[in-house]
Amino acid sequence: MVKHWVRFRTAAGAEGFGTLGGESITPHTGEMFGANAPEGAPLPLAGVTLLAPTRPLRFVGLWNNYHELAAKQGNAIPETPLWFLKSPGSVIGPGAAIRPPAGYAGKTLYEGELGLVIGRRVHGADEAEAEAAIFGLTCVNDVTALDILTADPSFPQWARAKSPDSFGPIGPCIAEGLDWRELRVQVALNGRVRQDYACADMILPPARIVSLLSREMTLEPGDVIACGTSVGALPMRPGMEVAVTIPGIGTLTNPFAPE
Amino acid sequence: MVKHWVRFRTAAGAEGFGTLGGESITPHTGEMFGANAPEGAPLPLAGVTLLAPTRPLRFVGLWNNYHELAAKQGNAIPETPLWFLKSPGSVIGPGAAIRPPAGYAGKTLYEGELGLVIGRRVHGADEAEAEAAIFGLTCVNDVTALDILTADPSFPQWARAKSPDSFGPIGPCIAEGLDWRELRVQVALNGRVRQDYACADMILPPARIVSLLSREMTLEPGDVIACGTSVGALPMRPGMEVAVTIPGIGTLTNPFAPE
Repeated sequence: MVKHWVRFRTAAGAEGFGTLGGESITPHTGEMFGANAPEGAPLPLAGVTLLAPTRPLRFVGLWNNYHELAAKQGNAIPETPLWFLKSPGSVIGPGAAIRPPAGYAGKTLYEGELGLVIGRRVHGADEAEAEAAIFGLTCVNDVTALDILTADPSFPQWARAKSPDSFGPIGPCIAEGLDWRELRVQVALNGRVRQDYACADMILPPARIVSLLSREMTLEPGDVIACGTSVGALPMRPGMEVAVTIPGIGTLTNPFAPE
Repeated sequence: MVKHWVRFRTAAGAEGFGTLGGESITPHTGEMFGANAPEGAPLPLAGVTLLAPTRPLRFVGLWNNYHELAAKQGNAIPETPLWFLKSPGSVIGPGAAIRPPAGYAGKTLYEGELGLVIGRRVHGADEAEAEAAIFGLTCVNDVTALDILTADPSFPQWARAKSPDSFGPIGPCIAEGLDWRELRVQVALNGRVRQDYACADMILPPARIVSLLSREMTLEPGDVIACGTSVGALPMRPGMEVAVTIPGIGTLTNPFAPE
């Protein structure tokens, strides 16, 4: 059975986590990535604010991991993950505003992606161990300040372009028990579909990504790996709503709201 | 008065923090980056293991931030920090072994650097606020897997080359109350000096770095910013001891010990 894990804040300001079913949340005690159990009455979804479902210590993003985009851009097919780190502070949850840095007037891209959420400490894992270490899947909007990325000809500024506060929307939940091969990533700007691609077109699949990363860098519960985007990533215009939908997981909607 | 803050583990396994004076530590209660007070009898330094003095959520490293190295390599002088992120899990303390990933047979460089440790949450700071947000200074060895950095012609792998477990030695302490302009960074390999440069040769000074970073990315207590290296960074050979010394702060020594 697929479970949809969420973190939330009540109107009284209390934070919690639980599983989502229909229009209510079953709160849990314990740790989302450890021992836990349902406790207390279901909460109406309408009465809480959903938060980012995890606060990762590592937020990894892959570049060039879809065949269709690689072909379109003329990129070689990588044999190992090509990745950057986003600052953990870039993370926001559903509904929160994406705000470019004050004074930044360049292009800001949305990039809809499948996110892997790590559930256990993993180091030097083979692919089977890596598969088992993936707790679940979430929607990621890997927001990018394109003009920062390319501003200096001597040094591509991946970390800086990907790390501004609010440039890492994730959510609305972490789905446990889905098969990534059957999923699609869809992005709509103000309701108009701009990305719609099959995760099965991925170059390096989740278990291989996690296995290869873990040989160099220990991963920990709550870490997020965004699997890269495919065709259709575009700049946003002020006031737009960006919705990343992965049917089976849910929809992550954020307004693009420069100050 | 200059204070030297350390974190330590006792022989009984208890972790603590305090100030270093001569051959003993004055333990403190509270938070290193918040309210704290000395409490308890001094501990002999010889009886404890020094740990990394902070566990940063963000570990930022600068590229091309010294005039002498920029001139030698023919790099343009940057007006904003050019930076990458190291995984927080790369951090190790004094004495711990630097171990390249299993199977990695390429060059592994030491890079001795001045590290800034952030003491308060800082966002959109001017240079005076940024200066005040720097809690203290530490030694950093920004270890780099050079052959990973350059392995893919289409994507320079900064995060991957800088993030393996153990590739971020910091310590032995955080010195509060020093003037960075008067410091030198010295690196010795098995006692032979290989780097010895003045921090005053820095292109972007600490307060400007922190101010510019904070306009895009909120920084938090414990975060570390390595200010970049200058001339003399070289590959290590198995069994070597690498000592980063900043007189006034101390010496950070780590063995290079591939498995």
